[in-house]
Amino acid sequence: MNQGMLRDGALQGKTIIVTGGGTGLGKSMSRYFLQLGANVTICSRRQNVLDETAKELAEETGGQVLALACDVRNPQEIENVITETVNRFGRIDGLLNNSAGNFISPTERLSYKAFDVIVDIVLRGTYYFTLAVGKYWIENQIKGTVLNISTTYAQTGSGYVVPSAVAKGGALIMTKSLAAEWGKYGIRLNAIAPGPFPTKGAWDRLFPEPLMKLMDPTSRIPLKRVGEHQELANLAAYLLSDYSGFVTGECITIDGGEVLMAGEFNHLEQVSSEMWDVIEQTIKQANRAGKS
Amino acid sequence: MNQGMLRDGALQGKTIIVTGGGTGLGKSMSRYFLQLGANVTICSRRQNVLDETAKELAEETGGQVLALACDVRNPQEIENVITETVNRFGRIDGLLNNSAGNFISPTERLSYKAFDVIVDIVLRGTYYFTLAVGKYWIENQIKGTVLNISTTYAQTGSGYVVPSAVAKGGALIMTKSLAAEWGKYGIRLNAIAPGPFPTKGAWDRLFPEPLMKLMDPTSRIPLKRVGEHQELANLAAYLLSDYSGFVTGECITIDGGEVLMAGEFNHLEQVSSEMWDVIEQTIKQANRAGKS
Amino acid sequence: MNQGMLRDGALQGKTIIVTGGGTGLGKSMSRYFLQLGANVTICSRRQNVLDETAKELAEETGGQVLALACDVRNPQEIENVITETVNRFGRIDGLLNNSAGNFISPTERLSYKAFDVIVDIVLRGTYYFTLAVGKYWIENQIKGTVLNISTTYAQTGSGYVVPSAVAKGGALIMTKSLAAEWGKYGIRLNAIAPGPFPTKGAWDRLFPEPLMKLMDPTSRIPLKRVGEHQELANLAAYLLSDYSGFVTGECITIDGGEVLMAGEFNHLEQVSSEMWDVIEQTIKQANRAGKS
Amino acid sequence: MNQGMLRDGALQGKTIIVTGGGTGLGKSMSRYFLQLGANVTICSRRQNVLDETAKELAEETGGQVLALACDVRNPQEIENVITETVNRFGRIDGLLNNSAGNFISPTERLSYKAFDVIVDIVLRGTYYFTLAVGKYWIENQIKGTVLNISTTYAQTGSGYVVPSAVAKGGALIMTKSLAAEWGKYGIRLNAIAPGPFPTKGAWDRLFPEPLMKLMDPTSRIPLKRVGEHQELANLAAYLLSDYSGFVTGECITIDGGEVLMAGEFNHLEQVSSEMWDVIEQTIKQANRAGKS
Repeated sequence: MNQGMLRDGALQGKTIIVTGGGTGLGKSMSRYFLQLGANVTICSRRQNVLDETAKELAEETGGQVLALACDVRNPQEIENVITETVNRFGRIDGLLNNSAGNFISPTERLSYKAFDVIVDIVLRGTYYFTLAVGKYWIENQIKGTVLNISTTYAQTGSGYVVPSAVAKGGALIMTKSLAAEWGKYGIRLNAIAPGPFPTKGAWDRLFPEPLMKLMDPTSRIPLKRVGEHQELANLAAYLLSDYSGFVTGECITIDGGEVLMAGEFNHLEQVSSEMWDVIEQTIKQANRAGKS
Repeated sequence: MNQGMLRDGALQGKTIIVTGGGTGLGKSMSRYFLQLGANVTICSRRQNVLDETAKELAEETGGQVLALACDVRNPQEIENVITETVNRFGRIDGLLNNSAGNFISPTERLSYKAFDVIVDIVLRGTYYFTLAVGKYWIENQIKGTVLNISTTYAQTGSGYVVPSAVAKGGALIMTKSLAAEWGKYGIRLNAIAPGPFPTKGAWDRLFPEPLMKLMDPTSRIPLKRVGEHQELANLAAYLLSDYSGFVTGECITIDGGEVLMAGEFNHLEQVSSEMWDVIEQTIKQANRAGKS
Repeated sequence: MNQGMLRDGALQGKTIIVTGGGTGLGKSMSRYFLQLGANVTICSRRQNVLDETAKELAEETGGQVLALACDVRNPQEIENVITETVNRFGRIDGLLNNSAGNFISPTERLSYKAFDVIVDIVLRGTYYFTLAVGKYWIENQIKGTVLNISTTYAQTGSGYVVPSAVAKGGALIMTKSLAAEWGKYGIRLNAIAPGPFPTKGAWDRLFPEPLMKLMDPTSRIPLKRVGEHQELANLAAYLLSDYSGFVTGECITIDGGEVLMAGEFNHLEQVSSEMWDVIEQTIKQANRAGKS
Repeated sequence: MNQGMLRDGALQGKTIIVTGGGTGLGKSMSRYFLQLGANVTICSRRQNVLDETAKELAEETGGQVLALACDVRNPQEIENVITETVNRFGRIDGLLNNSAGNFISPTERLSYKAFDVIVDIVLRGTYYFTLAVGKYWIENQIKGTVLNISTTYAQTGSGYVVPSAVAKGGALIMTKSLAAEWGKYGIRLNAIAPGPFPTKGAWDRLFPEPLMKLMDPTSRIPLKRVGEHQELANLAAYLLSDYSGFVTGECITIDGGEVLMAGEFNHLEQVSSEMWDVIEQTIKQANRAGKS
């Protein structure tokens, strides 16, 4: 199923801003939006990376791509992205908050400043951009849509990535809060919590060699595989399209079931079928002995 | 957006069983599955209703529909549906647990038996059917998919529909539990929690005249409208298709934001813009006075 | 902290029914309620076990204990417990739904009937008893309190204990639903989700020898220990006392953090301090290279 | 039940830092900790308010109170509180993150800066203080406990208080994340989500006259009353005491059931008993007509 799922033209005429759109999953999602007929503004901090990606995607899809450098912690740069996008495409219909940063580290090894860096990119950047675009939509009576890339640990929490967890947790509650408040304007906000979708580069950075072995998530995932970029792109396109017009304030997990392994007895997966034969007999006998 | 969202043939060659498929939302979802190329077995307790629906849907879509009477509280009738479906279509790929029942009533007015009736249809029927189809899939090494129609109150709880809440709550946990356990077989289970999707007939029965006025949900829904059947059908088809192959154990809410109104201050929606002008000044002054 | 936490007499004059009160945690909680001044009716299916426990607890605490055989799947036996308790103690103030049953098994190995047995004891028994006592309270204008013993997998789901998960999941939603609906009568309902609190007997039955090694939960629990019965009893007594008078519809987890291990990166606990030193350097360098 | 619930001396010998401890609920909780034998450091931005409170509480309880001005957004001031507290009391056992700030406002009326102010006090202040105290505990091998004052909208989200929701949402995920990660050090973190506990002053500021009428929460709360400060203090003292030694990563809601009103049909509370008589007949007849 490497092909996109939505019918052709599903995003025709829509303009979508993608933060962190120059690389990785942001780039993959942007590609699919373009294939579905959208105009896309990609932004991140590095203009040269953006320019290369914009060129590549435009050639590949025949779509319109605008590449604008922007540090999402800077309101003026955000407002510039909005202005330039409206100048070029006439209006903005969607915002995909995809910029991120992360440290893998025991929390007690972090400085206040290291903590701040992640929270500022992930949380502050998200509420700045959402606030700016939301004001533009309300003023212009546009029924726009926000999509935030979240994580499963935005709901469960997780050690060793605490600044990211804090920031993603806050951003998810923003999603629900504004979905409730801005619904009356026809503005929708949703989120996706992806499990492992490996991207060359990001993964190498996130998991240096000594960790790589420990981090192979395949065995911990019920479906025994990682995700494919197109699978995430399908879901993202759905949530930014009018087809999801009655979905708002929702966070959809796409993780092969990884987060479910919290279930208290799921580690029994390692029991073999033969051992279950033995256990079955033992338990049945014991239960026959009874319990109210 | 009354047109379906998935590309043509998205369910080509798949066979899906839809419980409660003779009427209402079950019928609407079945129609869309047929349009996407699926074979569909619809079942419910009334053969005559099923026959009529089967004829109508087959004519309308050109698809294959099997109509089988089945009380989901009866394992033998369930197993008969499985056998007959395999006989007719060769195999089963999807199960949509959509049968339901409900009383709107203060709980203290219910008898033990009234409580049981709802729990048996909604919960027992769901785990019986899932268990039967799951065993068939595991035995035949088929990577099947279950979709359960849930409700938002399966997670929040709700008074006045307590037997239904209990049953839907249990069925949702089954979804998560088996998604974790059966992931290794490639079996996926997901759920949808729909908000109000009015169906002539069901709604009249659920909300008799004295309640109808109280029940108009539009004002309580952030997006200020109810859902359209095709919107639910789109999401259901996605979750039963291979396009959602990395999504399992998830429950997706499609309710226009209705459930979000739990937020403690969302009732401030009733404050007018003019009143906010006044309040803004007052609060700013007060906050200036300070607080640690 | 093996001593109870509440001030003496915290349950003075209250009468509490404890299902599954003859053994294990039910017995430990009953003991503490008696120490705090409550009258307690313990019930389960085996009169001889109950009689022994009643004698032991009465001698130990000087409190009043009534031992009544009752199968919680039988409304008449439940109503008999209510009648006898009122006859003996004058009224009922609290209900602790603690009866349980469980199979550890791959779900596809279960018969319909095996599934039913657990659901009937755990879920049906809970809603029957709650319905019966609730009607008694509403009729007699008593502001009673229900406490349900839940599990963490009532919210996360879990494989290998699916009938129990389904039943506990349904019972938890009942807790929330009736807390909302019956709040106007002053009736409160809460739940506790305990992690591992070993009880000789129950644990041997639940985890036969081949499983026992796999099941040692200590290493999976952040606090690296199992719970002590008094810790659970403290929380249960609080929730049944008037001190928790503003808490309703809540489920409190007491599990040493076991359920938190769902967090995506928590398995990094196994990384040594020395390895973190290495990783720290590697990651800092990589992040310096940057990412928007 | 205006009396505290824990047995005398439950916090004897413990030292607890309370941010925002000079007024309101922070003051009420501090009072109870002192009554239970704890030493308390209260901090907030206004030294004069702190001094007055310290004097009052010391006289009232006979306990030891240290009053230290501290802006929780400033790491140096936080570290000073830690140093001074250790100098005075020898060590620190508990941290109650209770400082807060809030605007009630439509989000589109907020500036970036207004958003930042709340997030910085509530979220940044919480993770700064927790990081600082956590490092102290790990270094000194002290099994300390953090308690964070959260809100129900940290999980549900809420419009009209979005900066606070974002910040409380992030802080709650920090609680769960660090509970998992720092459990191995014996450090526990928990949270309380209080419903309405009116405090003269804070409420006047939060709800100026035009809002006051709209804001009366009593009718929306299932138990039909607001909370009493001692009820919150009881729960807080429990979570900071060793009695809760197996509880970590948990957020306990104490709100009279307010958050439960999310349940889809709970607004039927307004239906009168007489109307239910009518409805009951209507529905029964309709259901008899049937549905699979």
